[in-house]
Amino acid sequence: MSYIADDIICDAPAGRIEGAAAYRDFMAPFVQILAGAELIAAFGDEHTAVAMYDTETVPVKSAPAAECVTVDGGQVTRSRFIFDRAPFEAARRETG
Amino acid sequence: MSYIADDIICDAPAGRIEGAAAYRDFMAPFVQILAGAELIAAFGDEHTAVAMYDTETVPVKSAPAAECVTVDGGQVTRSRFIFDRAPFEAARRETG
Repeated sequence: MSYIADDIICDAPAGRIEGAAAYRDFMAPFVQILAGAELIAAFGDEHTAVAMYDTETVPVKSAPAAECVTVDGGQVTRSRFIFDRAPFEAARRETG
Repeated sequence: MSYIADDIICDAPAGRIEGAAAYRDFMAPFVQILAGAELIAAFGDEHTAVAMYDTETVPVKSAPAAECVTVDGGQVTRSRFIFDRAPFEAARRETG
């Protein structure tokens, strides 16, 4: 978490997450269901990086995601996170 | 459509789209509901480009999307498209 700014702002499908503690709480459940990830593409410059990858998770076998991070002073101050929640919602409905 | 390869393969949230005609049929309804777009980031090299942008659509006010395209011989042969279908499904449920 040392590369995450204390005042990080992250826009994710479910809404805005503000602050490193909230960011950690947001990421923790995802890391727990993560079974693997394959990088599709990654580019960036000194301030901004964009990555697209396909994740394999316990409930959803292929869940592609994209992330755009802004780095300032060696820390991520801004993150935008895009993935499709629909298959996760469908899996949740199926398992009850 | 001249920059779209006849045999384009596009992976979108709802599944794989194969061929320029199917790709056009996939994009057409989206273009119709598109009210605006703001670029978040775009990077690439001679073969691959990744863009993230926030779109404003008629049913969903903020619908961020990411796209990764592979270019071969001046045409897009491969596209990966990520966005969250959940708010579109919610809007559809609301309007019936």
